Amino acid sequence: MTNNELMKEDLKHIFHPCSQMKDYEKLPLIPIKKGKSSYIYDFEDNEYLDCISSWWVNIFGHSNDYINKKINEQLQDLEHVIFAGFTHKPAIDLAKRLVSLTPEPLQKIFFADNGSSAIEISLKMAFQYFKNKGISKPLFVSLENSYHGETMGALAVSDNGLYKDIYEDILIKTIQAKSPSLHDEDIAIDDMRSILKKYEGQVSSVVIEPLIQCAGSMKMYNASYIKKLRALCDEFGVFLIADEIAVGFGRTGTLFAIEQADITPDFLCLSKGITGGYMPLSVVMFTDDIYNAFYCDYDEGKSFLDSHSYTGNTIACAVANAVLDIFEKENIIEKNQEKIALIEKQTQRFKSLENVFEVRQRGMVCAIELKGYDSNRRINLEIFQAALKEGVYIRPLGNVIYFMPPYCFTNEQLIKMIDVTYDIVSTKI
Amino acid sequence: MTNNELMKEDLKHIFHPCSQMKDYEKLPLIPIKKGKSSYIYDFEDNEYLDCISSWWVNIFGHSNDYINKKINEQLQDLEHVIFAGFTHKPAIDLAKRLVSLTPEPLQKIFFADNGSSAIEISLKMAFQYFKNKGISKPLFVSLENSYHGETMGALAVSDNGLYKDIYEDILIKTIQAKSPSLHDEDIAIDDMRSILKKYEGQVSSVVIEPLIQCAGSMKMYNASYIKKLRALCDEFGVFLIADEIAVGFGRTGTLFAIEQADITPDFLCLSKGITGGYMPLSVVMFTDDIYNAFYCDYDEGKSFLDSHSYTGNTIACAVANAVLDIFEKENIIEKNQEKIALIEKQTQRFKSLENVFEVRQRGMVCAIELKGYDSNRRINLEIFQAALKEGVYIRPLGNVIYFMPPYCFTNEQLIKMIDVTYDIVSTKI
Repeated sequence: MTNNELMKEDLKHIFHPCSQMKDYEKLPLIPIKKGKSSYIYDFEDNEYLDCISSWWVNIFGHSNDYINKKINEQLQDLEHVIFAGFTHKPAIDLAKRLVSLTPEPLQKIFFADNGSSAIEISLKMAFQYFKNKGISKPLFVSLENSYHGETMGALAVSDNGLYKDIYEDILIKTIQAKSPSLHDEDIAIDDMRSILKKYEGQVSSVVIEPLIQCAGSMKMYNASYIKKLRALCDEFGVFLIADEIAVGFGRTGTLFAIEQADITPDFLCLSKGITGGYMPLSVVMFTDDIYNAFYCDYDEGKSFLDSHSYTGNTIACAVANAVLDIFEKENIIEKNQEKIALIEKQTQRFKSLENVFEVRQRGMVCAIELKGYDSNRRINLEIFQAALKEGVYIRPLGNVIYFMPPYCFTNEQLIKMIDVTYDIVSTKI
Repeated sequence: MTNNELMKEDLKHIFHPCSQMKDYEKLPLIPIKKGKSSYIYDFEDNEYLDCISSWWVNIFGHSNDYINKKINEQLQDLEHVIFAGFTHKPAIDLAKRLVSLTPEPLQKIFFADNGSSAIEISLKMAFQYFKNKGISKPLFVSLENSYHGETMGALAVSDNGLYKDIYEDILIKTIQAKSPSLHDEDIAIDDMRSILKKYEGQVSSVVIEPLIQCAGSMKMYNASYIKKLRALCDEFGVFLIADEIAVGFGRTGTLFAIEQADITPDFLCLSKGITGGYMPLSVVMFTDDIYNAFYCDYDEGKSFLDSHSYTGNTIACAVANAVLDIFEKENIIEKNQEKIALIEKQTQRFKSLENVFEVRQRGMVCAIELKGYDSNRRINLEIFQAALKEGVYIRPLGNVIYFMPPYCFTNEQLIKMIDVTYDIVSTKI
């Protein structure tokens, strides 16, 4: 079948995520037949360098032989089993490994299916922790320009008008503090302090995306803010939730972004890269203190009874273990340092372009913010299309181009990604 | 490793879903090494007949050869690709097949990862449909004794105190109408009418689990209620959301429960059995009229921008197609009729037991509600343990024992499941 035939079949029935479907009248959907390593291929054998890791998930390339092998092995034994009252080795191994890879106080883990669900679990647990002690602290604080997911709790703590505003009437009220990515760090921390002061005793948790507000135009800030925020949360007796759904698993240069701030959050939410772009899985990690607040006789009614049917899915846990194997065996974090340096070096030249406002980078995420375009002009689509013609798949957010390549990108592939983009930004647009 | 060694490793780090972790001090967690067809096996080679399909998902047995083969084939080509702007054949095929298997007006489909996310999507879409036309209808109506999931929107439309009450302060307010499973059907429909009348113009949707309120003690009601509710929703201009996450894919005897009411809901939510117990996937199906309310020029800001990273996951779609293959090739729905009749026949004898309040059944779900036990006595755990000793895994909800076997159960396995349970209920408890 041709791309066009498949697109037509698709558009008869499918509403795609994060899409105005009418856009596909002018901007054809691309049916993908095959993926291998850094490339995806359509039904007419065009190849595209997947420079955003298929929405920030595919960290080791498509159809990875090692992960495929591990899935096959797992399928012979067990695909899935109820995770209430039962358990299995892939989940036990994964829990043990994640605990050993994260700050020591994070000893406990709760499984879920996607990032939104992980955020919901951390919010509910943070609230219930205090409720179990007889105190209701119904308020949640997040940062302006934040994004934490699509379900109604995760959306309520987000501050992205594009995704949230229309639902205002059906979301609980939450509070947003000034973001260190948009303001001076001290101004941001002062704002957080005045909010925690004003609502003292009512706030159960503060939730942040450490270092990068990814869906928030890839705005970035420094680890020093996180350190100050940690102290502030301690001062006010408020939990700190680190949403590393997008930034975890090596994205910011370290395995987890919080390492750079040298702090321990009370909750750590992980997803996306955890299965290397293979399938949904998320986890929430937390402290023994939090765990113990739910540990009592059943009759006391204080447990955390959350569940999704596929909680602790066996195949997904086996895949996550394979992902951790690759990190270890291939020494990924160390090897990425060279790629990070290359990206930094190669993107310097954007800074001298008239239409570039800023080039910013944290590890394996580099964003180029443009300026001077009419707000009605959908410059992101123009750049997307121009790059696609050159076999480079990028997906700018508004006027922010970003690179979030899989860690299997070769130097040549990284250079091609940047060169193609530079040509477009400097001459064609 | 022994069961006990693995359990200890597990309990160091894992917080299990829907569990008071302290219970595991007395009621050991069971590590599962292997699953095959109707059985799961622990690390000491004990076998358990999985009579609840591993939490209502595993409809064709564990480690199914055909599904395994289809996963392998898919892994060679493509494990996953971003579903915004791109598509793939497994999703297109699945959409087409689901549209052909459901009522004709349900032409459109939106993908998500789990049941809760599907509910959230239907609630948000129902609300936004009216908002896009300039009207805010922020209220949602559901049934008393209902359960629709764990994320904060899905939980808000649930009415299960065990899961919801503690979070009251962080959930939006919704309205519950009398359930036809607990009241006379006409009283229930009158109550719904008076609610829709009282809040006329403010309600965007009514959400129900057709025929069985599964987590609500497997309470059941008749298709005639759904027919009346459909008429009522039409009268008041309110959407009807059918949550077939648990009851879909053959559970109630027909492929979908709504078939028995001969109506079309405005939204149909599916998950669990959709991947035959293999991995998370959910879909929301809806009408062209709903789709069209979001279809416009991008600038109008009326699209539905929801997304999860793994939306339309390729492997999960391939698995779902394999599941539909099995339904077709093995003529499952027709073959299940014999099993349904056998379950009905074999469970009649419970009715004459002193400690049995009611035996109820809808297709492949049969519930036996007990009576006469002190509310403090955790009779469910006693029955669970007694059955497990006989190699039969059931998981009673409070004083309600239920059977929800995979469709691969043989007559002998069905009889064993019922015989073991009967012995326990009639003599041992």
